[in-house]
Amino acid sequence: MGREQRIAIDAMGGDFGPSALLPGLVLVRERTPGVCFLLYGDRERLDPIVEKDPVLKAACVVHHAPYAVGMDEKPAQALLRGRKTSSMWQALQAVKTGEAQGVVSAGNTGALMAMAKVVLGAMPSIERPALAALWPTLRGESIVLDVGATIGADASQLLDFAIMGASMARCLLRVSSPSVGFLNVGVEDMKGNEVVKEASKMLRSLALPLTAHGFVEGDGIGRGVCDVVVTEGFTGNIALKTAEGTAQQIATALKAVLSQTWFSKLGAFLARGAFLALKEKMDPKKSNGAVFLGLNGVVVKSHGGTDALGFAHAVDVALKMLEHDVMAQIAQGLAFKSSMGACDAEVLH
Amino acid sequence: MGREQRIAIDAMGGDFGPSALLPGLVLVRERTPGVCFLLYGDRERLDPIVEKDPVLKAACVVHHAPYAVGMDEKPAQALLRGRKTSSMWQALQAVKTGEAQGVVSAGNTGALMAMAKVVLGAMPSIERPALAALWPTLRGESIVLDVGATIGADASQLLDFAIMGASMARCLLRVSSPSVGFLNVGVEDMKGNEVVKEASKMLRSLALPLTAHGFVEGDGIGRGVCDVVVTEGFTGNIALKTAEGTAQQIATALKAVLSQTWFSKLGAFLARGAFLALKEKMDPKKSNGAVFLGLNGVVVKSHGGTDALGFAHAVDVALKMLEHDVMAQIAQGLAFKSSMGACDAEVLH
Repeated sequence: MGREQRIAIDAMGGDFGPSALLPGLVLVRERTPGVCFLLYGDRERLDPIVEKDPVLKAACVVHHAPYAVGMDEKPAQALLRGRKTSSMWQALQAVKTGEAQGVVSAGNTGALMAMAKVVLGAMPSIERPALAALWPTLRGESIVLDVGATIGADASQLLDFAIMGASMARCLLRVSSPSVGFLNVGVEDMKGNEVVKEASKMLRSLALPLTAHGFVEGDGIGRGVCDVVVTEGFTGNIALKTAEGTAQQIATALKAVLSQTWFSKLGAFLARGAFLALKEKMDPKKSNGAVFLGLNGVVVKSHGGTDALGFAHAVDVALKMLEHDVMAQIAQGLAFKSSMGACDAEVLH
Repeated sequence: MGREQRIAIDAMGGDFGPSALLPGLVLVRERTPGVCFLLYGDRERLDPIVEKDPVLKAACVVHHAPYAVGMDEKPAQALLRGRKTSSMWQALQAVKTGEAQGVVSAGNTGALMAMAKVVLGAMPSIERPALAALWPTLRGESIVLDVGATIGADASQLLDFAIMGASMARCLLRVSSPSVGFLNVGVEDMKGNEVVKEASKMLRSLALPLTAHGFVEGDGIGRGVCDVVVTEGFTGNIALKTAEGTAQQIATALKAVLSQTWFSKLGAFLARGAFLALKEKMDPKKSNGAVFLGLNGVVVKSHGGTDALGFAHAVDVALKMLEHDVMAQIAQGLAFKSSMGACDAEVLH
């Protein structure tokens, strides 16, 4: 990165406000010394936090935004009330004007998606951007999309998701030919609905720098059978939250059984290093930062309930997306698909 | 149960054949002394297993079926090849003729569904039966349906699933007014696709003996926020397998970290009782036995890869369904819905 990176931060997003998120920027600045942050939000709340930390003071410029989009506001309402005046809108606008290279928000997902589409617009040929999440697996990490940007998708849109996810995987997971599979109820070709069957066939027919894996079942995600798992937003969101819920459920049950007897308490004490290692390994904060793919700009969504560590990870994701110029790779992949589609149409008709 | 219970067993289903499954019937017979089993399958394989166990010998009648449906056979192919001659078909036929009261198979799910529809038929007003699974939660158990009987469902079909799942919950979970929620990407009324919104509205409008909970997110299933979670089969199957995969992933990761140091190994040894208790609590064998709801008969699907313990649990589920006459309750609920639908139509038009 030759030039200075500037990331726009919607500082009013999230469940716990700016004081929970901004310390994360200190961590980012330690790892990426040159990076600067344009903070958007209520100056009266932001200034005191920035002023008292020399790192933040050196790295941040505060821009006053009078409105904060509520976490439960409907997207249409947020657009109406928060147009131009909200921290979310202004942070996105900074990317539009080039003042910042990317934006990170821990705010309302639906509103962020709606505003990003208005402010930045979708890439040519993309009707529906997708939200791509990093999913910890037994093999490392996979990218799963769409985890809830939009509900429903046709085969061509799933193919777009596959191409975008593969570009992200090449850059972020460092695999030259990422394996890409479609989430389905079985791995056999005959399984599933027509949309996934069609999308899988289309992906195989395109000579893209990826490995078309066919179908993946729900239990294949965590095993890491594919670098990229593609599905539409309804199922993807439910799969992601079901996995988070199951992990939480097991953690709760494990804590309960380990505190039942003196033997198990002692055992848990002796093995505490192992439990910490596991916690670290499976820590959702370390996978925080889902990326909206298909927009004209890098937009990263952090979990609303995250802390400084998690928020720092989300900002790191934005920086990685920029470092590897994932957006250009995506545009290239989509252009290739369009050109192949045109050829196919000529041959067929 | 006044009369003798007879359960038809498709003894050729499953990944490991009859020798893995039949010992489970001994366990069932210990818990439910009067029960008898009609075994369908290859007599040459079944007879030796039955002959050498006095409990099986007393409880089982072997019927020779020359064909065994393959685990990967397409449903249409299975119907063509296995009509009348397969162990699966004949076991279902035993329920149809009244020789048995219910059937259990660890065989090919799609084939079982297809054959059951042909042999037993669907209940009046049911177009698509659903597969209902017992899901271990932090509160106990919930019923989730459809986990993959059919792909896609409209609002009226989801409502049928809700009614059927509630009947099953009243009997198996022993709750008089089970809470029923629809799986969705958010809990707010505006969230999700039109189908779930419509189904949720319809459920609220019917005066059924259940509590309409609205929407449940993926992480709500494991927390046990609802007794019954309703979704269409594509998403339900993916949610179930994603949860199973996540549990497996955590177990694998936990084993790995616990064997890394001498301290953690010693800790794990001391806490082994706790780990066993957790394993017991989360044991998928104990939730084995998904029920096809909406058919004219009790049809229970066991996991193909289960062992005797798991298979016994699946047979227990069939016995419980019969003991509480869940089918009659479902028919009653569906009839009520139909009559209300007729009234509504009169009022509206």
